[in-house]
Amino acid sequence: MRITILGGAGFLGRKVARHLTTHGRLGDNEVTGLVSFDFVESPHWPDADFPVSRLVGDIAELPAEAVPQSTDVIFHLAAVVSAQAEADYDLGMRVNLHGTEALVGACRRITAAGGKPPRVVFTSSIATFSGGQDAKLLDDARQVPANSYGAEKAAAELLLADASRRGFLDAVLLRLPTIIVRPGRPNRAASSFISAIIREPLLGLETDLPVGDAFAAWVASPRRAVDWLLHAATMDTEQMGIDRSVNLPGISATVAHMLQALDAVRPGASRLVRHVPDPAIADIVETWPAAFEAMRARTLGFSPHEPLVDVVRAFVDDDLEDTRAERGLPRG
Amino acid sequence: MRITILGGAGFLGRKVARHLTTHGRLGDNEVTGLVSFDFVESPHWPDADFPVSRLVGDIAELPAEAVPQSTDVIFHLAAVVSAQAEADYDLGMRVNLHGTEALVGACRRITAAGGKPPRVVFTSSIATFSGGQDAKLLDDARQVPANSYGAEKAAAELLLADASRRGFLDAVLLRLPTIIVRPGRPNRAASSFISAIIREPLLGLETDLPVGDAFAAWVASPRRAVDWLLHAATMDTEQMGIDRSVNLPGISATVAHMLQALDAVRPGASRLVRHVPDPAIADIVETWPAAFEAMRARTLGFSPHEPLVDVVRAFVDDDLEDTRAERGLPRG
Repeated sequence: MRITILGGAGFLGRKVARHLTTHGRLGDNEVTGLVSFDFVESPHWPDADFPVSRLVGDIAELPAEAVPQSTDVIFHLAAVVSAQAEADYDLGMRVNLHGTEALVGACRRITAAGGKPPRVVFTSSIATFSGGQDAKLLDDARQVPANSYGAEKAAAELLLADASRRGFLDAVLLRLPTIIVRPGRPNRAASSFISAIIREPLLGLETDLPVGDAFAAWVASPRRAVDWLLHAATMDTEQMGIDRSVNLPGISATVAHMLQALDAVRPGASRLVRHVPDPAIADIVETWPAAFEAMRARTLGFSPHEPLVDVVRAFVDDDLEDTRAERGLPRG
Repeated sequence: MRITILGGAGFLGRKVARHLTTHGRLGDNEVTGLVSFDFVESPHWPDADFPVSRLVGDIAELPAEAVPQSTDVIFHLAAVVSAQAEADYDLGMRVNLHGTEALVGACRRITAAGGKPPRVVFTSSIATFSGGQDAKLLDDARQVPANSYGAEKAAAELLLADASRRGFLDAVLLRLPTIIVRPGRPNRAASSFISAIIREPLLGLETDLPVGDAFAAWVASPRRAVDWLLHAATMDTEQMGIDRSVNLPGISATVAHMLQALDAVRPGASRLVRHVPDPAIADIVETWPAAFEAMRARTLGFSPHEPLVDVVRAFVDDDLEDTRAERGLPRG
């Protein structure tokens, strides 16, 4: 099975590549080749038992080598995230929409040359919805995006679903929850604090909480996201019909729940979280739906989410030391 | 008020232009200039009391003259319709999606130069939905398009709503029902028969009906569509929030109802309709939702639909003689 990861240098792309290079398999299939494409250099995977090609480029001008004729699965994770797409409209459109069109074009060339439509696993987002703190969205909820990132992701979903119906490719469109705990540094995304209130105290650092303890978010762990991506890569799509989208079974967690889980893993750590209300951030994040009833995902075999305390423990096991090293902090 | 019609040579574009040039007003405002843009030559409007500019070009490469700096209202009616967008993927994407992006770019240049965001009245379609004969869709129904035309229109809606939120333009997105009675000739659209079973008998010609008498469609008259377009051009959009879409109050009519209305206007005319089942056509049109509960449109002031018999009479009054002339048939 030949695989391409678009966005292979990113947070989830690296985790998917690590899984593939470590296990050498995707579902029941042996991996025979991997292309990692990104706008920056992808990591080396020296332990892989198959050829790994690392390409740097602009996804809107996707080169043919990124998606060779024999490609079986494409993880399309390349994206300009919410705050950046809001700040730079042209860049968001270029990567999030025109990048997806370039991928459709690449798959069309494969099928026009007699190849099988490649499976495309696309990371869409709950940012395609609005609804707010009181919402509990069912699988048939409308997407009314309140930001350019969400609009571009929703439009990309439409193009990929139509390309699937036409037989150019075979898409599964995953609307990921907010992923916590993100490694690395705080960033300018409005959602940055949702990871920071767990990550920073575990690093021994203070951090600001811009919303109240009752604020709820729809979240999922990196481990669960990778598991869902891998399932989407090999699942039977016949049963999906023309609707290729899946709202995933994340968990609805309040800030109070998150801090409780933090303290369960590192007693007293939540004392490093300072309540510093920030109405500008609150106004944005309070438009995001805080809960979904993700019934279709369960029918389609997507795994249920682990408890919040396991999310905190997994961050400690998987990413805490790398984050310390990246940020030049002493080892814990 | 300066107005542009994109698709000004088309069926609805000509009717909007005729209204503007006849009355010289749009709502309470005097019309001071009109640009009619299309990929073919637009009609002459010699009776207009204001300058009319007729431009021919490709909407994906929209020239600056099509949307001058002082433009107040743009009717964006340019489209590659369903059967053609299905047959020619690249053309559908180019006109229906990239043409809309070009319009967003033109409006951005206007606002970047200090101009007011132009009102954009966009004709989306019920083809953005699926659901079938038993569906009665509420205003919050999801768009799961079953054809490329619908996917492109739904994606264009997302881009225009986002551009409105960002202040590049001020959009109203009208999801038009199937418009009957279309003048001219039968065409290869799967929906062609819905107009043909009224138009052809009124011309004294036989026509084939590919579905059963119980088949229902969500329809609206050209008069009603023009009235809705004009209302959308001057209505207050503040009350719409970020959701700029409107499902319009068409009527759900069965073939039996349509033939009854035909016979009420021209007794016995329905004898010219031959039942010739065509499963290929039935399979397509039976995926289209046959009814909507268009509550938001009423709140927003869109006029209710007239009875079906008035639709048949209006075709006789407005379009029958022109259709005869166009098709070289003797005057009735």
